[in-house]
Amino acid sequence: MTISKLATNDFYKLVVILLLLSGQPVYSFNETGTRLTHDWKFLRSDLGGIWEAVRPVKFGDPESVPLWENVELPHCFNATDAVDPDVNYYQGPGWYTNRLNINNPYTDGRTLLHFEGAGQKTDVYIYTTKVGSHVGGYDEWTVDITEAVNSFMKDERLMKQFKNKVPLSIRCDNSRDLEMIPSDLSDFNVYGGLYRYVNLNYVPSLAIKQVHVRTSTDADGKKGIIGIDLSLDNHSMQANAILQIELLDPAGKVFYTAEKQIQPNEEQKNIFSYEIRKPALWSTVSPALYQCRISLHSGKDTHRVTDRFGFRHFEFIEHGPFKLNGKRLLLNGTHRHEDHANVGAALTEQMMLEEMILMKDMGVNFIRLGHYQQSRTILELCDSLGILVWEEIPWCRGGLGGEKYKAMAREMLTNMIAQHYNHPSVIIWGLGNENDWPGDFAEFDKLKIRKFMKELHEFSHQLDPTRKTAIRRCDFCKDIVDVYSPSIWAGWYRGIYNEYKPMSEYHIKNLNHFFHAEWGGDSHAGRHSETPEATTEKIKTGQGVDERAGDASLYGGSTRVSKDGDWSESYICNLFEWHLKEQGKMPDLTGSAFWVFKDFSTPVRPENPVPYMNQKGVVERDNTPKESYYVFQSYWTEKPMAHIYGHNWPVRWGDKDELKEVKVYSNCHEAELYLNGVSLGKRKRNSQDFPAAGLRWNVAFNDGKNQLKVIARKGKTIVTDEIMQTYQTEKWGKPAKLTLSQISRKGETVTVEARLYDENSVLCLDATNFVSFSVAGDGRLIVNTGTTSGSRKVQLYNGRAIIRLNASKGKSIVAVKSEGLPVAFCEVNTMGYH
Amino acid sequence: MTISKLATNDFYKLVVILLLLSGQPVYSFNETGTRLTHDWKFLRSDLGGIWEAVRPVKFGDPESVPLWENVELPHCFNATDAVDPDVNYYQGPGWYTNRLNINNPYTDGRTLLHFEGAGQKTDVYIYTTKVGSHVGGYDEWTVDITEAVNSFMKDERLMKQFKNKVPLSIRCDNSRDLEMIPSDLSDFNVYGGLYRYVNLNYVPSLAIKQVHVRTSTDADGKKGIIGIDLSLDNHSMQANAILQIELLDPAGKVFYTAEKQIQPNEEQKNIFSYEIRKPALWSTVSPALYQCRISLHSGKDTHRVTDRFGFRHFEFIEHGPFKLNGKRLLLNGTHRHEDHANVGAALTEQMMLEEMILMKDMGVNFIRLGHYQQSRTILELCDSLGILVWEEIPWCRGGLGGEKYKAMAREMLTNMIAQHYNHPSVIIWGLGNENDWPGDFAEFDKLKIRKFMKELHEFSHQLDPTRKTAIRRCDFCKDIVDVYSPSIWAGWYRGIYNEYKPMSEYHIKNLNHFFHAEWGGDSHAGRHSETPEATTEKIKTGQGVDERAGDASLYGGSTRVSKDGDWSESYICNLFEWHLKEQGKMPDLTGSAFWVFKDFSTPVRPENPVPYMNQKGVVERDNTPKESYYVFQSYWTEKPMAHIYGHNWPVRWGDKDELKEVKVYSNCHEAELYLNGVSLGKRKRNSQDFPAAGLRWNVAFNDGKNQLKVIARKGKTIVTDEIMQTYQTEKWGKPAKLTLSQISRKGETVTVEARLYDENSVLCLDATNFVSFSVAGDGRLIVNTGTTSGSRKVQLYNGRAIIRLNASKGKSIVAVKSEGLPVAFCEVNTMGYH
Repeated sequence: MTISKLATNDFYKLVVILLLLSGQPVYSFNETGTRLTHDWKFLRSDLGGIWEAVRPVKFGDPESVPLWENVELPHCFNATDAVDPDVNYYQGPGWYTNRLNINNPYTDGRTLLHFEGAGQKTDVYIYTTKVGSHVGGYDEWTVDITEAVNSFMKDERLMKQFKNKVPLSIRCDNSRDLEMIPSDLSDFNVYGGLYRYVNLNYVPSLAIKQVHVRTSTDADGKKGIIGIDLSLDNHSMQANAILQIELLDPAGKVFYTAEKQIQPNEEQKNIFSYEIRKPALWSTVSPALYQCRISLHSGKDTHRVTDRFGFRHFEFIEHGPFKLNGKRLLLNGTHRHEDHANVGAALTEQMMLEEMILMKDMGVNFIRLGHYQQSRTILELCDSLGILVWEEIPWCRGGLGGEKYKAMAREMLTNMIAQHYNHPSVIIWGLGNENDWPGDFAEFDKLKIRKFMKELHEFSHQLDPTRKTAIRRCDFCKDIVDVYSPSIWAGWYRGIYNEYKPMSEYHIKNLNHFFHAEWGGDSHAGRHSETPEATTEKIKTGQGVDERAGDASLYGGSTRVSKDGDWSESYICNLFEWHLKEQGKMPDLTGSAFWVFKDFSTPVRPENPVPYMNQKGVVERDNTPKESYYVFQSYWTEKPMAHIYGHNWPVRWGDKDELKEVKVYSNCHEAELYLNGVSLGKRKRNSQDFPAAGLRWNVAFNDGKNQLKVIARKGKTIVTDEIMQTYQTEKWGKPAKLTLSQISRKGETVTVEARLYDENSVLCLDATNFVSFSVAGDGRLIVNTGTTSGSRKVQLYNGRAIIRLNASKGKSIVAVKSEGLPVAFCEVNTMGYH
Repeated sequence: MTISKLATNDFYKLVVILLLLSGQPVYSFNETGTRLTHDWKFLRSDLGGIWEAVRPVKFGDPESVPLWENVELPHCFNATDAVDPDVNYYQGPGWYTNRLNINNPYTDGRTLLHFEGAGQKTDVYIYTTKVGSHVGGYDEWTVDITEAVNSFMKDERLMKQFKNKVPLSIRCDNSRDLEMIPSDLSDFNVYGGLYRYVNLNYVPSLAIKQVHVRTSTDADGKKGIIGIDLSLDNHSMQANAILQIELLDPAGKVFYTAEKQIQPNEEQKNIFSYEIRKPALWSTVSPALYQCRISLHSGKDTHRVTDRFGFRHFEFIEHGPFKLNGKRLLLNGTHRHEDHANVGAALTEQMMLEEMILMKDMGVNFIRLGHYQQSRTILELCDSLGILVWEEIPWCRGGLGGEKYKAMAREMLTNMIAQHYNHPSVIIWGLGNENDWPGDFAEFDKLKIRKFMKELHEFSHQLDPTRKTAIRRCDFCKDIVDVYSPSIWAGWYRGIYNEYKPMSEYHIKNLNHFFHAEWGGDSHAGRHSETPEATTEKIKTGQGVDERAGDASLYGGSTRVSKDGDWSESYICNLFEWHLKEQGKMPDLTGSAFWVFKDFSTPVRPENPVPYMNQKGVVERDNTPKESYYVFQSYWTEKPMAHIYGHNWPVRWGDKDELKEVKVYSNCHEAELYLNGVSLGKRKRNSQDFPAAGLRWNVAFNDGKNQLKVIARKGKTIVTDEIMQTYQTEKWGKPAKLTLSQISRKGETVTVEARLYDENSVLCLDATNFVSFSVAGDGRLIVNTGTTSGSRKVQLYNGRAIIRLNASKGKSIVAVKSEGLPVAFCEVNTMGYH
């Protein structure tokens, strides 16, 4: 599949279709691989020994407990419990079993299990033989199961018992471990499980283990140089072999072929090299991808692998901007965790694709994959979609452990670089995050941390001289790495957002290569404010804008928006927009990456409005865009769009005839707003006219329902957007009563809304009470999704909260309760509305 | 406390009061001990290292997660999840922390942590120092924490941080482990946690570690011989010390004192001996207990310990009966697990006391403590209440493991004998249970099992020549032990109960010392039958009455009551009574122990009417007696009692004018039954007149409500009993609709009853559908108790099931559902009835 040739703005839409049709991995290193997706059994517990996984079990006998679940891969231990308000997420061992149909097509071929990543420590067994182990939750690894499989298959009694299949058992373990990275002090879950794909691969006895395609090009792209390094796995007796290579251009046309007789040593450095004139350059708008096909012939067997690569030139100018292929590119960046509603870390390729396309559609051209090596699929998508990458190892928080800990960090760096080397999207290898954060060890020695950081920095350059190193937030190491991001959270953890630009300019001047990773703030999806800046006035300025120890806490310390603000979408849109506006005036800025594209679960924030959720995303944990998504889109994209602020804000409030600000986020040059069909005039876009780049109107709403419509023009293209908003002029008093009612049904899914009123039945539009939902009867609440509409316990947003119910049959009664208020109920029937 | 002097029939009633008033352990070996009951924190997860248990935590910071629970000891990991129908019970690590106030009164004294039992593997830490470890969930053990405590207390910074307390952290682990006993194939939970008391003890540097009081007496009790062995712990420089002894008779009067200068070596064999004439004999009706007080003086310090002992003579006649103090005693035995509703294994002393008194009130004079060493409190109670004991090590099911496994079995035997040596109630050390049950190892070698059994048998006699060894169900080892119990489950797992006596007589003849442990069957509390013997007719007889592989399964194999019967109380009362009646005709029977006094949880029976419950008890898991309790009481006790069968059977059924059998279980000589005030005549008791020992009437009930009353006479004492029963003559069809309604309220607790009717609203009195309860709103269902009235999922009993709700405030809606039926709801308000 040569998706890179579809380098139009919308090319990646096609990718979705192609992938979903094929059911295949985005990119498969080994052409003979089979993805082991189905027929797994899972037990979230340890076993007493491998024998328990394979002993004969008669239905109903004691061997049949504990009860295993049927699951599909990818699968995460913590698909739901990470955001269950009532429990700590499970951190311990779990087992998976499957039965393999082994059918190796090669003479004396090798049978391999290839793990795309598994959390966090993994042991692999064929029948009762331990065939491999791995520590590290994010890198890829392979276990050669050939001998164990062959030995098992020779045993006729066992083959009969297992119906000619070979029993595979895998123990994953995400137990807490101070001597493992990442730290459990990290602001994300250290997930467990086979949460990335597992592949069964067959290779010949002489096989290609790894292909590194080294490319370089100059800034103006006049010529490209390709060098190919191979490593081989030689289990054969063959003393020589033939290597063939084909290079294909982005259109899929072979432009180079070569053949070589080799002595099959493990390392084949620079086995092929080639120089082309005017290569098609990979860029964020036109991510041109070449292919390299290699065949290794030995005896009767041939091993074929394919990989993609690209040509691009990048440069961090000292104290200056970032350049891609010789031209300045402002890095419009974000972050992601491997985390999604209902699955935890176990995103399918389809989910990853949808997320990355949503990201690209918002205008992202850079991503920091924080805080660990991510799925190969993500890197393939970054290559295909044109998103530059900072990828990093999970040395995150806690300090520095002992030798085992350091060895693990080194191995994670080695593997990340080796495995993601060919991706043209990658420009930075990150060495750590918040390594100034103590806590996991009695000792916290900055000199030792510096020394280890230096070692990693040098090691990274040794493994890959073509990329930069970087870290974020560890000031006492900032001189060590190539690119450094200090902590700047203007308007969130410290200071106000107006302090952002001076602080950034200070860092641009004082750091060789400044990049700004992590900024933004939390917003509770669906919560809006008529006075989003109310907290800003109480914040001390001039005290710095970095996050310091304890700032993320909801308790104690100085007044700060993160603790004292309203967590409204309204505030965060302003904060985001201010940053984007200011970035437009900073010619020396390399770029930034706001934290974070998608809300994600975290064990360290149990008391958030959605418990255990970091709510800093511009989309919810199920990819539902918040309003801030459109702020970014209006600044970062070209394709015409317009979005009236407040799609999920059903009721605004104020005095009768008070003028309320209506904002439109749009990249169009001009927009006209209509209230109930009457034009309120045209506005021209000016990115420096804050807020909404000047696309704002003061509107006198009618009491009750109002229709807002915008018509925006960009050249010849017209885009529109429309919302309904109720305007409430009645003032409310103390919250006094909850109501709960069904508001919609879609197939089996019923949506129920809780509302909080005062004693006069006026909706309390600023109520933030925590509410809890429960259900009696046939239905099942759709909870533990980590979204504001899918949480058993959640803070109200503007006096309301919704919950969904799987109501495929029968009758249910849903309840909502909140401390100090009478409970409310709502009956839900299978058919029709209530 | 000298409770033994209250040796009347009711003396143990007084014990309750005394103990509850004192709040003290029944018996404390060490007079300076403090029970560490309060202020524990618990985490059901592993930690990343001991540092996580002690590092500074600021409220709201990442160190404050995972969230710990406040708990009191005793505490079990599995207090509720063992019987949660939806999960496997937790088997993994958990942590406890506490802060110790250390105040050792002795010069150079030792500070000890004494564990009365902890599940299953335990590590103990003072601050970050590991001070001890133990493997084994049922024996007692002690950790000397002196050095670690002293070293911690010297660190002023730490003492300040911990507010002059010493941080104690304990990791318990009940992970599955094939190389640990008992096997997870066992029919009970291998619980985790500090489920028995933990004591902080101070002793002088020269201290008494253990006191063994060896006693013997002849069958007619003419003289008693006492010999005392001590073991000492000498951390002092003292080269000699003075030992003083006082012996007290059951009335608390000192009858012997002595003093000795000793060289404080570890072992002090036969340091005192004494012979008394005509000692007060300990028996099951008059459990006379002596006391031994020992003082050890060394330097300025004195260590005092007190222990109890008794004189009794027992004998197993070859092929004949059991004799206690020279007279035949039919062992009326039962079994118990350490298991109770809402607490799992963590029974408080009060709970143990209540249970043992309930047992004694039923007439039990023997107990097999299956299948592990039980709490010291249980043994003290057996001594005080007059209950003979077979106590055993947890070598139960699965086969035979490796060296580690065997070493553990040896250690469990050593510790059980050493720790429970002084109890006059103990007569048998059990070496194993169902060791013919394979499954935990690929190998199952009977010769190796025999060899190990022989070793244990000899080892037991070496450790304690005064008691017998025994096992149950391992026929290929039956010649090794002193007392053997084969598997006889007549009328349950195989055959019919009429086959019981011939089979027992066969074994009496063929075994030197036959004892019958484990018989009975399951009954679903509240379920009754008008035709309890319906299944009996379908059972093949003459095929043996032993349980064989797979018989306990609810699937497959031959027709058997355990799989095909109705699990009614009616059937099981008949089964029990038949056995008791037959035992009256077996002069050579040593006795039996039915399985089991109390329903208990088990992981291997997920599909039982109460999921995960072994329902063979005569009381429910919360000590609520089933009807069978009274069957035993009527055979085994002297104190007049009468109980009409069917207290928890609200509706009987049959044709109009059909005569229905009403049974009265009573130990009275004569009883008269009244229906709605009209006498139905007197019956004389005759234990051989089955059923109800002749106390049965054929009754023509009125359609609707009926009052039954019995007046029974024993000598001059009159006892009565009375029940109301509805008689239903309408026949029911297919179950069609559920109802749910509130039937009572007691304080905060509301009881709700589900009923199942046919389409004509006739109650389906034989319906056994599984129902599930749920609740919406303020209330909390009282579930996971393992009782028929406290299970979220439960089989109906005679078309009904109740559930309780904690309804301390607000309003709740309870629902009941059952596959294929419309759900039913019931509203519960705080005040009044609905």
